Amino acid sequence: MSSRASNQQAPHPLDPLRPEEVQAALQTLLKHVGCPAEELRFKLIDLAEPAKAQTLQYLRHQGTLPDRRARVYYHLKGSQSLLIAIVNIAKKRVEKETEAPDSQGPVDWHEFELVNKACNSHPEVQAEVAKLKLPRNARVHNDPWAFGTDDPNERRRLFQCYMYVALSDDPEANHYSLPIPLAPIFDAHTLELVELQRLPMGTGDELDPETQPWEPVKPVEYSASIMGEDAFRKDLKPLQVIQPEGPSFKIFGRRVEWQKWSFQLGWTLREGPVLHDVQYDGRPLFYRVSMSEMTVPYGDPRTPYHRKQAFDLGDSGFGLTSNSLSLGCDCLGHIAYFSGVRVTRDGEPVVMPNVVCMHEIDDGIGWKHTNFRNFKSSVVRNRQLVIQCTATVANYEYILAFVLDQAANIHIEVRATGIVSTMPIRQGLQVPWGTVVAPGVLAVNHQHIFCARVDANLDGDEKNTITYDECHPVIENPEIDPYGCAFKVNSTAINKPGGYELDITKNRTYKIINESRINSISGKPHGYKLHPVPSQMLMMGPKTFNYRRGIFTSKAVWVTKYQDDELWASGEFTNQSREDTGLAIWSNREENVKNEDVVLWHSFGVTHVTRPEDFPVMPVEKFVMSLKPANFFEVNPSNDVPRSNQSQNKSTLHTVEKESCCRPSHI
Amino acid sequence: MSSRASNQQAPHPLDPLRPEEVQAALQTLLKHVGCPAEELRFKLIDLAEPAKAQTLQYLRHQGTLPDRRARVYYHLKGSQSLLIAIVNIAKKRVEKETEAPDSQGPVDWHEFELVNKACNSHPEVQAEVAKLKLPRNARVHNDPWAFGTDDPNERRRLFQCYMYVALSDDPEANHYSLPIPLAPIFDAHTLELVELQRLPMGTGDELDPETQPWEPVKPVEYSASIMGEDAFRKDLKPLQVIQPEGPSFKIFGRRVEWQKWSFQLGWTLREGPVLHDVQYDGRPLFYRVSMSEMTVPYGDPRTPYHRKQAFDLGDSGFGLTSNSLSLGCDCLGHIAYFSGVRVTRDGEPVVMPNVVCMHEIDDGIGWKHTNFRNFKSSVVRNRQLVIQCTATVANYEYILAFVLDQAANIHIEVRATGIVSTMPIRQGLQVPWGTVVAPGVLAVNHQHIFCARVDANLDGDEKNTITYDECHPVIENPEIDPYGCAFKVNSTAINKPGGYELDITKNRTYKIINESRINSISGKPHGYKLHPVPSQMLMMGPKTFNYRRGIFTSKAVWVTKYQDDELWASGEFTNQSREDTGLAIWSNREENVKNEDVVLWHSFGVTHVTRPEDFPVMPVEKFVMSLKPANFFEVNPSNDVPRSNQSQNKSTLHTVEKESCCRPSHI
Repeated sequence: MSSRASNQQAPHPLDPLRPEEVQAALQTLLKHVGCPAEELRFKLIDLAEPAKAQTLQYLRHQGTLPDRRARVYYHLKGSQSLLIAIVNIAKKRVEKETEAPDSQGPVDWHEFELVNKACNSHPEVQAEVAKLKLPRNARVHNDPWAFGTDDPNERRRLFQCYMYVALSDDPEANHYSLPIPLAPIFDAHTLELVELQRLPMGTGDELDPETQPWEPVKPVEYSASIMGEDAFRKDLKPLQVIQPEGPSFKIFGRRVEWQKWSFQLGWTLREGPVLHDVQYDGRPLFYRVSMSEMTVPYGDPRTPYHRKQAFDLGDSGFGLTSNSLSLGCDCLGHIAYFSGVRVTRDGEPVVMPNVVCMHEIDDGIGWKHTNFRNFKSSVVRNRQLVIQCTATVANYEYILAFVLDQAANIHIEVRATGIVSTMPIRQGLQVPWGTVVAPGVLAVNHQHIFCARVDANLDGDEKNTITYDECHPVIENPEIDPYGCAFKVNSTAINKPGGYELDITKNRTYKIINESRINSISGKPHGYKLHPVPSQMLMMGPKTFNYRRGIFTSKAVWVTKYQDDELWASGEFTNQSREDTGLAIWSNREENVKNEDVVLWHSFGVTHVTRPEDFPVMPVEKFVMSLKPANFFEVNPSNDVPRSNQSQNKSTLHTVEKESCCRPSHI
Repeated sequence: MSSRASNQQAPHPLDPLRPEEVQAALQTLLKHVGCPAEELRFKLIDLAEPAKAQTLQYLRHQGTLPDRRARVYYHLKGSQSLLIAIVNIAKKRVEKETEAPDSQGPVDWHEFELVNKACNSHPEVQAEVAKLKLPRNARVHNDPWAFGTDDPNERRRLFQCYMYVALSDDPEANHYSLPIPLAPIFDAHTLELVELQRLPMGTGDELDPETQPWEPVKPVEYSASIMGEDAFRKDLKPLQVIQPEGPSFKIFGRRVEWQKWSFQLGWTLREGPVLHDVQYDGRPLFYRVSMSEMTVPYGDPRTPYHRKQAFDLGDSGFGLTSNSLSLGCDCLGHIAYFSGVRVTRDGEPVVMPNVVCMHEIDDGIGWKHTNFRNFKSSVVRNRQLVIQCTATVANYEYILAFVLDQAANIHIEVRATGIVSTMPIRQGLQVPWGTVVAPGVLAVNHQHIFCARVDANLDGDEKNTITYDECHPVIENPEIDPYGCAFKVNSTAINKPGGYELDITKNRTYKIINESRINSISGKPHGYKLHPVPSQMLMMGPKTFNYRRGIFTSKAVWVTKYQDDELWASGEFTNQSREDTGLAIWSNREENVKNEDVVLWHSFGVTHVTRPEDFPVMPVEKFVMSLKPANFFEVNPSNDVPRSNQSQNKSTLHTVEKESCCRPSHI
């Protein structure tokens, strides 16, 4: 496969579109629509993945290369109605055209800029800002927010512009430390002010009768230049990662090979990095592994906060908002970068350089055993391959990483960081909905709920089964268990789609198994088990918009039967959505999923009760879900990793500070 | 404090005993007992910590240095009765003497050797082994196991010797891959064979009428020399960690200073490393943080497996079984080592070199924010300090680490690795109690349940309170919450000792707070919150020995009022214990713990359903509990960490393989 994938002339069917392919799709669409580019407004051109059946045939050398296709979201200028086209790039043909007049497409950068400017320059907004009597050097900012939903009849494309002030010209001046009580709503199509909403400053919903002058307060800054050199700790010594012989990975086009793993590194504007066709030691494991969706509902009922519920993949996109990374900041060691492509409003491709980085890390001991009879010890280190992006969704950062290791485990890691969404609060007050994290700054409590999607094809078979094992004591059976110590593993195969719960009290463990392949040692079917992130699920009840827009938030595990294009947990269009058009539908179909082409989804996250320690920028909260082999291999897959030794590792022995101690080892 | 601690003449009151102190304690005891060393049999001489009140007075410069004291476990030769002495080393006086005729002290290396030899050389055992008709080159081994408990009247000190065969002279030949169905029981005092127990090879309890000839099978090896060079993957490139300016830590005696943290690095034979007097930026946080106990009950009811339940701290000791570490194997980078001291059977000190290692690691991004208006980005990396030991308890390894970071978080990490306990099984059979992990090798399912102990003194006050916060939706209150999105944090203060449960469905979060110190920003009390490891608790019911010997296994969180010497969750003597003499008693006292000197205990672990992938040596399973500040600081404590930059990090850009791709960034 490498030789084909490495051929720049023929992209792998699951590779992201290249700039020239975006161009070609654009030209085909323009020709099809029959009007000049100026009359269209593009939001997205991204890969439309080929059908799985066809792709697998190709990958198995049993079929031809599937045609490259693009998914295009666009508008006719002046029309609010979203148009969706699937363009066959190879055949220069629009294969599918749909209109979604009731749906809102994701945010695009151009629209974001327009709304941002419309708000800042609007006379009514400016008049209201004037009442704040801000200091001369104040710069007024706004963050256009995905509007959320509280009215099922709303059809306009709306943004709520949360407003802030920066008191310094420094490019990193922290305006989130100076929220002001204004949040005008703009129509993104007409750029009209819909409502100059003001924000409550107190404990209840009520507003000040009139916007009050701003109470001066010192912002909490993270900008190194504002803070000044003296504000920093001085005793952090450099730590560098050196790979004198280069990295252990190889890249052929977008195919990556590393330590018996190989995968095709996909990337979409919506999801960021995606792993396709993941294999270990030549054995297929997963057809596709991705972060599917993430939503952040806020727990503050005061208008307009009740609407705050971003879907940061569906509304914005982890790819579209990904940082262009630079050497030495996000990773240490030997780093490979991968780029992405987005489009301008005119549909022209724009390369987003270095939106994904890949490097190796050392994660401490991978396994160790010492023979206590002679103290002979074998250690292997836990080398990992990290494929990572950082998505900046306005104030907040998500660092998404796929991490592979030498024991054939795959981990999906999310680090939540960035700046918590801030609201103004009158100094000295507290509200039950959040924590005051800086003077005049409220950080409302909220949840982040992610949904990862795992499409397995263990050992190359599409037919897999999802089971859960539970450990139950053998209670009161003196014949076989006179001392009451016995416990058994009960296995339940899931045969219909739906949402399923974790149960830690029973050690409930979900597994993907291939019933037709039996481990020759254990006699059990080949499988991969899910190590979940046990999390509080959505607190908002089934009647709420929060729930109805994303039911993936209500259960930790979801099981569906595979269908092409069913990739996104809450459905294709989440922005101002009223109903979930994803798992809500797919998990409700009456169909068998046992020994079928089945997809596993895992919802997890955090209920973030905010702290002053989360401000100005929040230290990472890390969540790691893992997929680990269970009866898939006959021995520890990392048994063949070369043993750790000093001749390779070249560690340094600490010598004791002279003033303190004369002993070579500290007793 | 540094200057005092660094003075080798006066050890810190919480430092481990030095060899000369062990000697002094020994001499004092011998004089006191009035008989020569040959008539005594020593098991342990270790620090007896001074009273907390006195220690704190000293640390606050309000009192004198507490006397150094030793805890001594010993026997009069020929007597089974355990003697415990507290020796005041400074005053050369035995302060306390007790006899514990009903308790068994922990294992010591000498006794282990004696039992091991007694078993291997016993004619009856040898006769039984002969029936196996082993090949000529077979070496017969046995691992004396803590006997466990099934008879409340048993008073002998017993070991069950599980037997194995090695087919190679290689020092790392894996005898655990060749278990044989013999498990003789020996009396450790008399070295007599108590019973030549045989092991079931089938699904039920019944034994073969006679020990059957061994069925030849190829062992699964991890020894690099047995495996041979060709068995190893060839494409792992070296990865080295370089600290060109040295580490960021400083060591004064056993006081460690690192990135605003400082602590006294204690160590005991029972617990391994212990953190004392932990401070951040000069503010006291914890008086003592330690791993308190760990037990492994096995779920196989067949005799004698029903008794298998090791307490690897109380029965053996994470300190006593710690590996002497060597440069470049267990850690990468700049490593400091600390040693420990054990005693011989005669009470003479033996230095255990390098049983604790300390080094810095890079854990990826610590926090990041990008201003999307101008793409200016600030990143700090997550530098951590790792204090680690590896305990080899016969077949199994525990890697225990205390990990500090720059956001004032402290993590307790356990990696479970080593070789799972193996039992023989007739080839081709399966049993419900475990998994066949290699031909003829059964690895029984089991639990590992740890208990960490946290004695906080936030901001230097002994009076703290343990609370739990839960997040609850505000249900059906249309007046304040018309859209049903609101949720509140309810806080409950714990006022009586006991065991408490986790509740992920409510995001229940335990915190240690200091009610008398209020955060000036948030108006909430200074606190540290527990990020637990949600785990299935002990499956064995309250009537079982498993439960009664360690009730810490039944609930995730325990709260007790501090008393000196209450350090070990299941009590002082766990070996063959019949009842828990720790939390079972301390958590049942009728006393107030609110705004008192209170101790938090967290029980966590894993139910290990074994896999062939766990053999021969198991890839690490990692568990991390954390303590994180909550309203303890006024800003992100890592806001002052110097920003990450390439001039310090010196990362390397990957250039693309020539044969594959001409693009500088992989699109």
